[in-house]
Amino acid sequence: MATELRYVGLDVGGTTMKAAVVDDDGRVAPHVSLPTEPERGQEAGLETMCQAIRMAIAAAGSTLDEIAAIGVATPGTMDLKTGYILDPPNLKPWRNVPVRDYIAHHFGKPTAFQNDANAAAMGEYWSGAGAGTRSLVMFTLGTGIGGGIIINGEVLEGEHSHGAELGHMKIEMTNPRLCGCGKRGCLEAYASATAVVKRTEEALAQTSPTSILHSIRREKKLTARRIFEAAMAGDALALRIVDETAAMLALGASNLMHVINPEMVVFAGGMVEAGDWFLQQIRRHVPTYAFPVPAERTQICFARLGSDAGFIGAAACARQLIRGALRR
Amino acid sequence: MATELRYVGLDVGGTTMKAAVVDDDGRVAPHVSLPTEPERGQEAGLETMCQAIRMAIAAAGSTLDEIAAIGVATPGTMDLKTGYILDPPNLKPWRNVPVRDYIAHHFGKPTAFQNDANAAAMGEYWSGAGAGTRSLVMFTLGTGIGGGIIINGEVLEGEHSHGAELGHMKIEMTNPRLCGCGKRGCLEAYASATAVVKRTEEALAQTSPTSILHSIRREKKLTARRIFEAAMAGDALALRIVDETAAMLALGASNLMHVINPEMVVFAGGMVEAGDWFLQQIRRHVPTYAFPVPAERTQICFARLGSDAGFIGAAACARQLIRGALRR
Repeated sequence: MATELRYVGLDVGGTTMKAAVVDDDGRVAPHVSLPTEPERGQEAGLETMCQAIRMAIAAAGSTLDEIAAIGVATPGTMDLKTGYILDPPNLKPWRNVPVRDYIAHHFGKPTAFQNDANAAAMGEYWSGAGAGTRSLVMFTLGTGIGGGIIINGEVLEGEHSHGAELGHMKIEMTNPRLCGCGKRGCLEAYASATAVVKRTEEALAQTSPTSILHSIRREKKLTARRIFEAAMAGDALALRIVDETAAMLALGASNLMHVINPEMVVFAGGMVEAGDWFLQQIRRHVPTYAFPVPAERTQICFARLGSDAGFIGAAACARQLIRGALRR
Repeated sequence: MATELRYVGLDVGGTTMKAAVVDDDGRVAPHVSLPTEPERGQEAGLETMCQAIRMAIAAAGSTLDEIAAIGVATPGTMDLKTGYILDPPNLKPWRNVPVRDYIAHHFGKPTAFQNDANAAAMGEYWSGAGAGTRSLVMFTLGTGIGGGIIINGEVLEGEHSHGAELGHMKIEMTNPRLCGCGKRGCLEAYASATAVVKRTEEALAQTSPTSILHSIRREKKLTARRIFEAAMAGDALALRIVDETAAMLALGASNLMHVINPEMVVFAGGMVEAGDWFLQQIRRHVPTYAFPVPAERTQICFARLGSDAGFIGAAACARQLIRGALRR
């Protein structure tokens, strides 16, 4: 329709960037992907972003004139107020890149800039697992644990762009594990995919070699996926690791129920592929940690948009520049 | 001024209720106090609330006609959406009391209803420690640990009125202390005034009687205040307890820096009387737990309004009904 507004969402990852045109109702045109190749430097990176945006517009059979606004999501560290990427570990050697203003000037369009985990949460809120909810908290389980919080259509960015760094809540004092961030006791050090493998390796070193994980480890690299598969096949050690992981994620979710108290908690990332069985385990542990009312009423779901959540959420942030927050 | 709007704020506690008229700029008229006497039942309680509001209007030399709106804060449990107190442990035997609608109908005024800890945070945001900030997180340290979160002038109420139950964040898995709420590992079970006394009693039972706390305990009831005084007098055990408490509060504050990432963290309650020395100890522990940027930039302060914060914040919630959120 000629009168319908359209937005471009771009999600820049360490390996790949993805972009698509999304319309005012969240309908997504075919997306495009380009290699990010951060090692080619930030000037090349900015040009690749522009190229991805142009390709996405073409893939939608659209023209730049029809685009109302652009949204860009990148990994941190960043300054959301000024629209800069600062010193992102996943985009080395980029440093102090004025992403928002560069894209805005290049295309002459209002441009939103957002952290990738926040954008993914916004995508799920707009048209994924959280469609229809007023508020959601999302945990993205991967190498680390990312987070995003949406309340009444607005990303909780925080005063210094550190809102929803949920993987770095401290959940242990007595014997706190070292986290990749350099601190101790972070949720990420217990329940990220990386941490699941590490905890399993430690358990294997301490047990007699009866677990099928011992033989898997002799032949292949131990991964969270293989540990979850072993659990589904009934391996006792793997079942214990998965159950402990579910308990830790339930504790993390419960902490957010006592801070944000959202309508929904969403889990995203590779572990989601373990399926509903794992979700049930997380849900089962929640009443141990959360007050009865939020334990009973908070919806706990898996994400639905997969790796498209980032560019859809970036488009949602672009839409917000034009339409205001998507309050419900 | 005849054109200036005025509000009544009422803060209902388990023992006393306090009310005052507050003008549009946060200037507070003399407040009034009445005993709550919850044991007389909820009908009597509602009538006492009305009486406190009338007395506050009279104490301000004002009339009901000059009042634009009323705000009432009460302890939980509650349903903020419907304006009911549900089953408050501190107001037994009250149950399912339609506070907001009762007051609104009685006075014929728009009436706001808020949790007492949220209202206190709102008071500090409006005209206390947080005046001028965009966002703050407040921890109130007493028998338990209450919390309030204000972002851009709005109370984070949560979907089921459980927003900012900060005392019930879990911070320990290995050997989690039992909390008054029935769960384990809550911040409150470590760092409330009650928990400080309990941790001290345990330490005293395990140490030779060299601490001055041993002799204090033989003569008087051990209180958080006496433990802090012993620390200030140089007692080694008391110093250790206070330092551990500061570390746990720094951990709690850091968790909020990684979830809300506010401009300011405010501590309120009796421990505040320990003075700037204790605040410095909390600040010193923050970099152990928080990322460098929020650790460096988040203001960590004591509350300024004391027990007036509740009715001032209740008035701020009333003001919001008329003026909208106090965004900065």
